[in-house]
Amino acid sequence: MRPTLSSFAAVAALPTSLSDTIVALSTPPGAGAIALVRLSGPEAIRLTDEVFAGKPLRNQPGHTLHYGTIRDGERIIDEVVVSLYRGPHSYTREDVVEISTHGSDYIVQELLGLLTRRGARLAEAGEFTKRAFLHGAFDLAQAEAVADLIAADSALSHQVALRQMRGGFSQELQNLRGRLVQFAALLELELDFGEEDVEFADRTGLVQLLQEVQALVRRLLRSFELGNVIKHGVTTVIAGRPNAGKSTLLNALLNEERAIVSDIAGTTRDLIEDEVSIEGIRFRFVDTAGLRDTTDVVESIGVERTRKRVQQAALVVYLFDIKTTTPQQLEEEIEGLQAPVGTSVLAVGNKSDVASGPELAAFRNRPGTVLIAASRGDGLDELRQELLALVRVDGLDRTGASTIVTNVRHARSLEQATQHLDAVLTGLSSGAGTELLAADLRHALAALGQITGEISNDDLLTSIFTQFCIGK
Amino acid sequence: MRPTLSSFAAVAALPTSLSDTIVALSTPPGAGAIALVRLSGPEAIRLTDEVFAGKPLRNQPGHTLHYGTIRDGERIIDEVVVSLYRGPHSYTREDVVEISTHGSDYIVQELLGLLTRRGARLAEAGEFTKRAFLHGAFDLAQAEAVADLIAADSALSHQVALRQMRGGFSQELQNLRGRLVQFAALLELELDFGEEDVEFADRTGLVQLLQEVQALVRRLLRSFELGNVIKHGVTTVIAGRPNAGKSTLLNALLNEERAIVSDIAGTTRDLIEDEVSIEGIRFRFVDTAGLRDTTDVVESIGVERTRKRVQQAALVVYLFDIKTTTPQQLEEEIEGLQAPVGTSVLAVGNKSDVASGPELAAFRNRPGTVLIAASRGDGLDELRQELLALVRVDGLDRTGASTIVTNVRHARSLEQATQHLDAVLTGLSSGAGTELLAADLRHALAALGQITGEISNDDLLTSIFTQFCIGK
Repeated sequence: MRPTLSSFAAVAALPTSLSDTIVALSTPPGAGAIALVRLSGPEAIRLTDEVFAGKPLRNQPGHTLHYGTIRDGERIIDEVVVSLYRGPHSYTREDVVEISTHGSDYIVQELLGLLTRRGARLAEAGEFTKRAFLHGAFDLAQAEAVADLIAADSALSHQVALRQMRGGFSQELQNLRGRLVQFAALLELELDFGEEDVEFADRTGLVQLLQEVQALVRRLLRSFELGNVIKHGVTTVIAGRPNAGKSTLLNALLNEERAIVSDIAGTTRDLIEDEVSIEGIRFRFVDTAGLRDTTDVVESIGVERTRKRVQQAALVVYLFDIKTTTPQQLEEEIEGLQAPVGTSVLAVGNKSDVASGPELAAFRNRPGTVLIAASRGDGLDELRQELLALVRVDGLDRTGASTIVTNVRHARSLEQATQHLDAVLTGLSSGAGTELLAADLRHALAALGQITGEISNDDLLTSIFTQFCIGK
Repeated sequence: MRPTLSSFAAVAALPTSLSDTIVALSTPPGAGAIALVRLSGPEAIRLTDEVFAGKPLRNQPGHTLHYGTIRDGERIIDEVVVSLYRGPHSYTREDVVEISTHGSDYIVQELLGLLTRRGARLAEAGEFTKRAFLHGAFDLAQAEAVADLIAADSALSHQVALRQMRGGFSQELQNLRGRLVQFAALLELELDFGEEDVEFADRTGLVQLLQEVQALVRRLLRSFELGNVIKHGVTTVIAGRPNAGKSTLLNALLNEERAIVSDIAGTTRDLIEDEVSIEGIRFRFVDTAGLRDTTDVVESIGVERTRKRVQQAALVVYLFDIKTTTPQQLEEEIEGLQAPVGTSVLAVGNKSDVASGPELAAFRNRPGTVLIAASRGDGLDELRQELLALVRVDGLDRTGASTIVTNVRHARSLEQATQHLDAVLTGLSSGAGTELLAADLRHALAALGQITGEISNDDLLTSIFTQFCIGK
C-alpha cells in the first residue's frame, strides 16, 4: 500500500505503556533541605492517598498544596507537603503528585519502596517527559530541549535550549512542512487520477517553493556549526615560541593565575586547559609548551603534544613576540604549525607595550592579526572580538533570537531533507514522473517530521529519553 | 535584680533580623529534573511577582500552585511552577514562595541573582528553620531534629529524629519542667515574704518530686549512650589469630566479598572497614591483620594497627578457630588484647562445622561466647543478637518508641540539670535556706529550658543552625 499523506502526521505504533503509574526522585540525590518524589499516571492520586495522612487528595482540586504525614501502616516516614496536579493540567498531562519530603536519602528510599510496593513503577530516565510528549504536551524537539536546558551552563546555550523548548524551532519546522504538504497533496491528487496525465500542481511554483525551503533548511544546517559551538564550546589552542607570553595570555583571558609564568623559556610543559565564556560562548583555551627544538626530554614531549593539539583545535591563537619576530618568520612559523584546512589561525603579536613604532607597523596591517600586551591587558577586548568573529556564522546572530540547531539528530534529519529536496528539484528539471517526485517529497517530509516526532518509533524515543536524568 | 520565673519562659534577646526576605536553593545542587528555590519573609510574594509572568500571586490564596515564567526584563529565565504559602500557614510561619525550576545550576544561579538584585538576601545555613523556631513553629530540640532527620541513614536514627522533630522529647521535658515550676513558684513566694520565715512549699513533697524528676533525667541521660550508637554506629573490631577466618566473617556479615580471603595466614594487612545495619543499628566492622609475631614488615605494621584499633573500639569480636584453640589459650589471648575497661569483648569460635564434639563442648558453656561457621553462615543470627545485646541499654527498647537523647548538647544540659537537682536535694536534707534552694532549682530549670530553647541566646542559635544545610 502506498503511504498516504495522513500517515506523516501519525505517531508510529508506541508500545510504551501509559496505563501504569510511575514514580521517581525528581531532585538531585544527596542530603538537602528538600527532596521531591514525583508520581504520574492514573493511580497517582489514589496511591498517594493510601500512604498520606492528611486531607483526602481525591476530593481536592488541582494546583493545590497539602500538608500531612506519609505513613507505612503505623510508622511515620516523614512530614511532607504534597503538590496535587490533575491531568491534563500537569507536566505529563496525567494526574501528577509531587511529595516534598525532608532531603534525606533514607526517607526517599523508604518512600519509593512504599509506593512501589503498592503498585507504582520506578520511572525510567526521561519517562515523565516522554509521557508529556506522548500525550501531546509538546513535540520531540521540544522534549529534547528539556534535557539541553538542564545541561545548559552558559547564557547562550541556556537561551537556545529555552527557545527550542518553548517551540521556536518546532514552529519554524511546521512552517516549512506546511508549505511542502500543500504541494505534496496536489502531487498525490495527480497520482490518484492515474492514467489521465493531468497536472494539478504548478511545476514552476513548486520549483520556487522548493528553492525557498532549501534556503531555510540550509540556513538551519549552517546554524548547527554555531549550535555545536554553543553546546560544546570552542577549543582554542594557544601556540607559539617559548617565552612569547602564552601563559601570561591564558591567565589574562581567564583572569586568574592558572598557569605558572616565568621569564624562563620552557616553563610550561603540560597542557593547561581552562574555560572562559566570551559573550555567552565558551572558549576552552589550551596553553601549550613553546614550540622549539629542545634536548629536554619532558619539554620535547610537551612540544609534541602541542603539535597534536593544533591538529584537533577549532581555533589556533599563534602568539608571537613583536620585538623578536619578523613578518617573514611569522609566516614561516604559522606555516610550520601545519594546522588542518578549515582551522582558523589568529596571529597575535604580544608585548606591544615595549615594541617600537616600526616593529608595530610591520604587523599592524597584516589581516587576521591582533597586537596585544598580555601582561597589561592591552588589546584583549579586540582579541576577544576577533575570536568571536571566527566562530560567527554568516547570517546568524549569537543572541539566541534566531533558531539555532544544536542537536546532531536534528542536523542529520535536515541533511536528509535537503538531499531529498535536491532530488525533487533535479526530477522537476529533468521532467521526472509524478510518482518519483511524490516519493522524494514524501521522504523530505518524513525527514523533517522526524525532528518534531511526528514520525517516530519506540527505538528512537528510547534512545532520546534514556539520555535524560531519572525523574524528569 | 533577681531573675523571676517568667524569665525562664522568655527567649533571650535575638538580634537576628526577621524583617528581610531570605532566599536559597533548597534542593541539593547539581543537574536534576527539578530544583527548588525558596523565599521566606514579608516581601516573598511581592518579590516573586516582580519576576514572575503568570497570575499575580498577591491575589492568590495560600497553598496553591501556579504555572508561569520567570523573566529578567524581556529575557525568560525558565518556565516554572510556583508554590504559594501565606504565613502563618507555612514552614517558617512567614509568607513563603517555592519556585520549582528545571534542575540546572545555571538557571538556579540566574534566579538567585535576579531575586537578590531585587532585594532578597541569600539565606544562611538553617535560616528557614531558625525563623520557624523564632516564630514559635517549634522549639529548639525539634528544630535540631530536622537536621538529624536529614542526616539519618538508618531506620532507627530516622525514627528517633522524627519522634524528636514531632515533639516527643520536648513533651517529656515540658512535663519535667512543669512539675518543677510549680514548686519553684512556691519557693519564690516564700522569698517574697522575706523575713517572715513561712514555708509554703511542702519539703517532703519536694524531695519526692525531685527524686522522680531525677530518675527521669537520668533515664534520658542513660539513653544518650544508645542515642550516640544510633546516630554514629558501633565500631566493632574483629581481632584474632591469623587464619581464624576474620575476613570470611566480615564478608558474611556484610553479605559481599569485601575483604580478600585466602588460606594463607596474613592475607589481610590493611584495616578493612565497612558498615552493616542490624535491626536499625549501624555496626562499623573493622577487619584486622591477624595477631601474631611476624617478621614481615608490612604485616607487622598491620598487627600494630590492630592493637591500636582495639583500644578505640566500642566492641571487640575476638574470633578463634575452635579446632586449634584451647580454652586456656583463648583466655590468654583475650587477656593479651588489653581491651580498655568498659569495652565488651565477645568471643566467637569459628569453624564449628568441622570441629569435633569435644572441641565444641569445650567452649559451649563459656559465657559471652558464640560458635559459628562463618564460611557457611551458621550461627550468624545468634552472633548478631549477641552484638545487639551488648549495645542494649537497660530499660530502653530500640524501637524508637521511647525518647532517646542523641544530641550531645542535650546530654550536657541534662547533666547540668541533674547536678543542680542533686544540689537541691542535698540542700533540703541539710536544711539549707529557701534562697539557696530556689537558686539551685532555677539553675536546674534553666538547664532543662536550654534544651528546648526557652532559654537561648544568639550565639547558641548560630552554633546550632550553622550545622544545617543551606536552604533548610
